[in-house]
Amino acid sequence: MQMDPQELLSLCKRRGFLWPAYDIYGGAGGLYDYGPLGAALKLNIENHWRALYVRGEGFQEIQCPIIAPEPVFKASGHVDAFSDMYVECTSCGETYRADHLAKGLHDNPATLNEEQLGKLLRDNDVRCELCKGELTAPKRFNLMFKTSIGAGKGKTAYLRPETAQGMFVNFSQVYRYGREKLPVGAVQIGRAFRNEISPRQGLIRLREFNQMEAELFVHPDQKTWPKFRDVEGVAIPLLPNSGDARTMTLGEAFRSKIISNEVLAYFIWLTYRFATDIGLDPKRLRFRQHEKNEMAHYAIDCWDLEAEIVYGWTELVGVADRGSYDVQAHIKHSEADLTAFERFDEPKEVEQEAVKPKYEALGPMFKGKAKAVGEALGKLPPASARGKDKVEVTVGGERLTVPSSCFEIMVRKEKVSGRKLVPHVIEPSYGLDRILYSVLDHAYRKKDDYITLGLKGLVAPIKVGVFPLMAKDGLDAIAGEVFDSVSAAGLEAYYDDSGSIGRRYARMDEIGTPCCVTVDYDTKSDGTVTVRDRDSAEQVRIQKSLVANAVSALISGSPLKSISALR
Amino acid sequence: MQMDPQELLSLCKRRGFLWPAYDIYGGAGGLYDYGPLGAALKLNIENHWRALYVRGEGFQEIQCPIIAPEPVFKASGHVDAFSDMYVECTSCGETYRADHLAKGLHDNPATLNEEQLGKLLRDNDVRCELCKGELTAPKRFNLMFKTSIGAGKGKTAYLRPETAQGMFVNFSQVYRYGREKLPVGAVQIGRAFRNEISPRQGLIRLREFNQMEAELFVHPDQKTWPKFRDVEGVAIPLLPNSGDARTMTLGEAFRSKIISNEVLAYFIWLTYRFATDIGLDPKRLRFRQHEKNEMAHYAIDCWDLEAEIVYGWTELVGVADRGSYDVQAHIKHSEADLTAFERFDEPKEVEQEAVKPKYEALGPMFKGKAKAVGEALGKLPPASARGKDKVEVTVGGERLTVPSSCFEIMVRKEKVSGRKLVPHVIEPSYGLDRILYSVLDHAYRKKDDYITLGLKGLVAPIKVGVFPLMAKDGLDAIAGEVFDSVSAAGLEAYYDDSGSIGRRYARMDEIGTPCCVTVDYDTKSDGTVTVRDRDSAEQVRIQKSLVANAVSALISGSPLKSISALR
Repeated sequence: MQMDPQELLSLCKRRGFLWPAYDIYGGAGGLYDYGPLGAALKLNIENHWRALYVRGEGFQEIQCPIIAPEPVFKASGHVDAFSDMYVECTSCGETYRADHLAKGLHDNPATLNEEQLGKLLRDNDVRCELCKGELTAPKRFNLMFKTSIGAGKGKTAYLRPETAQGMFVNFSQVYRYGREKLPVGAVQIGRAFRNEISPRQGLIRLREFNQMEAELFVHPDQKTWPKFRDVEGVAIPLLPNSGDARTMTLGEAFRSKIISNEVLAYFIWLTYRFATDIGLDPKRLRFRQHEKNEMAHYAIDCWDLEAEIVYGWTELVGVADRGSYDVQAHIKHSEADLTAFERFDEPKEVEQEAVKPKYEALGPMFKGKAKAVGEALGKLPPASARGKDKVEVTVGGERLTVPSSCFEIMVRKEKVSGRKLVPHVIEPSYGLDRILYSVLDHAYRKKDDYITLGLKGLVAPIKVGVFPLMAKDGLDAIAGEVFDSVSAAGLEAYYDDSGSIGRRYARMDEIGTPCCVTVDYDTKSDGTVTVRDRDSAEQVRIQKSLVANAVSALISGSPLKSISALR
Repeated sequence: MQMDPQELLSLCKRRGFLWPAYDIYGGAGGLYDYGPLGAALKLNIENHWRALYVRGEGFQEIQCPIIAPEPVFKASGHVDAFSDMYVECTSCGETYRADHLAKGLHDNPATLNEEQLGKLLRDNDVRCELCKGELTAPKRFNLMFKTSIGAGKGKTAYLRPETAQGMFVNFSQVYRYGREKLPVGAVQIGRAFRNEISPRQGLIRLREFNQMEAELFVHPDQKTWPKFRDVEGVAIPLLPNSGDARTMTLGEAFRSKIISNEVLAYFIWLTYRFATDIGLDPKRLRFRQHEKNEMAHYAIDCWDLEAEIVYGWTELVGVADRGSYDVQAHIKHSEADLTAFERFDEPKEVEQEAVKPKYEALGPMFKGKAKAVGEALGKLPPASARGKDKVEVTVGGERLTVPSSCFEIMVRKEKVSGRKLVPHVIEPSYGLDRILYSVLDHAYRKKDDYITLGLKGLVAPIKVGVFPLMAKDGLDAIAGEVFDSVSAAGLEAYYDDSGSIGRRYARMDEIGTPCCVTVDYDTKSDGTVTVRDRDSAEQVRIQKSLVANAVSALISGSPLKSISALR
């Protein structure tokens, strides 16, 4: 259903899902508060994701700091390459993303460099949208929020632009906790930050946002997943980078090499399951494979879950096979040994190169130091000496040059029990705020100005509204008892005794509460209450002592009819 | 029990509770990762707190951004006053908190200013602890992490030093969501940041930490709480700022005015209940009232929950009556109307002052503008005109001076239905990392090198270990089924089939798992398994189909004996 983007946002503000942050100080672009209903909805989405990934698939949930020292993001590439270009109005100071201003002037402005983009804007006389002032030439702007740790000069640090790096730098810890086996996975749910030049579209492009990311470390040659057998028959809407959109089974997509491996295919399924569990409309979901020129150079394959919402098709989740890129980058920069050990079924005889000192040449040349120099040579990596005229070694703090006449590269056979390997990473990365927004978007229904949010029971912030027909004659006391009984069962309930019953139903429908319970005068005589189902507006009467069970059943998806059997 | 602080931290690192953050890059002071067990323990603590505050007391949980623009913390006072003094070594560059270096040289170095502290350090020839270099004079250092929002010059912003401000700035939203009644409360669970000059003591003083804060907005003259009746008989160890430490009932403490009001007393009780629920040892807890000179000038009363841990008595929670200070500060800086409306039982006739223009004087003086000037005068706040020789008004963009001969202050009677009031704030503020650390500290037991973490079932990261006696003969398959049945019941289980059973029990005891289930050869014949209780090391046999129920009962505190009845 097409709607005005402001319509849903306005409901969200009015009813306590979302508030523009720091409103009393004029607000701050790209920052939102989750009000009580939004925070509860978010928590319910997080908990279901956790149930699937942590309890269901055995991922380790960890929590890393938001602030990280510069070397972490130097290694990840964010310091050098995580940037957009902006232009500034020379008269009013307003800033714009340069590529956004070039839309319509070029097929793909994101591929242009500063100069090309600057020329394009100049040639088309693009000006400030507010005051028609002249714009500066495009400048690169790093999208990480920068800060500094410690007093005095301090150390440069950044707010993480993604939660992923915390898991990559901890690979060895995760591997050890997983008792040194592959595959092993970690997840993190938390805030991440991008200093967007011009944030917009409500929750879709925020400066401070929430991610749920999983990093699965796998053996590079064993991208298989036993549970894939159970789901390969599931059909999913795919939009491959070659050929047309089609709904096909995951098994078919894997066998025809559209999806590059089984692990990726399994997590595409898990993502689809998650999305439909929390109430996204399957008819408005698809997995779009990245174009070859869209993928990072190191990525092996990448699929985005996209949802059709008021802003058009929007990326909610990326499921990527990132190869060994991330772990390799941290090995290179930290010099830490972020490898897994693959034990062979039985020890293998392998040929190993080594640097062998020639003492007959070392003796005359280095005299009393010859033995120490020989030992230092023996420790050199063969690759650093092979084919060289001379090498350098350090002996007793002294740097010595040793000519190639003093050593040779020899090959020796050794029995080894296994080998070190750098794991590949399969990364399902979920944009939590966008997912939450899309859940609201797909749940939104309006008929003659009557708004209903069709949230599923699993995620609805309030599970049941509890009303006394009148706030007198003891009906309120009974309703209070019913409220306490559902609360005690761990179900979020909302007590409301003001206004007509119709008005109270409408309030609950508008915030997505799946059912309501009304205590009336019959309750006093026969102990029954009315349970009303939001989506059908049908009602049944059941014993008041059964309300908690009935609500549990309803929000797990049981039909209202089955509830009436509880009577 | 006295122990080496490193002992517990080393267990935490080894077993996956805590990891020093960014270890492969040499670490970063004051930043820790929560490993899988730490993150699960933290989540369990958060969820119990949420159950008490949100479901139990009806607080609204909200989530605000971590980044805030400068005006927010200008209003809160943090930009001007949230600082420590540091000195820097002139040769090696090491930084120190100046007051820490003065310990032992002065009774209370925190009360000294830059000059006094500098003199004290100079007079005592205090030098760099690392290289004995000379130190600079003390300088003030603001403890907020600073950053900037947006491209170009950007806007100065800070990482929040507490979650509280997000709730104060949202008072009107919270009040409206609560249907405009007092008391109304909001809570927030999340990260906060303090750029400590020298962080130390593991989780006790972090640069990035986690808070659980509640802000209860109350009527200034109605600091009562009906549920206080239910708990006033509970005795709690108190250390008032007048007189000796003693254990007394909350009712007694309130009636003898040791605790200044009922609301505060109730939340002291709730804090105590929370602390003991999650396993803190009541014998190592106390509530210490702030000294009069320790309290902020605006605070009405403040009590800290302190726990005795390896570092000594340590503040975990502050429960404060902050008066109207915080809300007033934001009213002043934002000019927003952050008030509640108190509706009188029936409309009252009140005397209102107003500025009344004297047109007979205005006419000759202001001619054609007289009417506009008169209207402008009528809108002036009476206080700004009372007793003044002249006032200024703006008419049509022009600033005009009006002598007192042109107006008078008159008193008129009006019927009003209520009045605006600025709420007072009762703030229970919980330091989550310190609480988590204290839970581990109080749970730690060591006997002949055998370590047991006596975590309560409510918070234990793993609820049950599931073991096949041997990983063969089908025992592993049965253990797998048992594992699946407890997982499906939402209980975190850990499957282990390697090493002796004793070794496997030891692994579980060391991470605080309350019970273990072993599948052995009898299981194949009679379907029973062994359930072992961690704390008594006693065992009972029950039917394997009852394991999930038995574990649920055990972790809720049922004795092992009652479990055996399930057989």
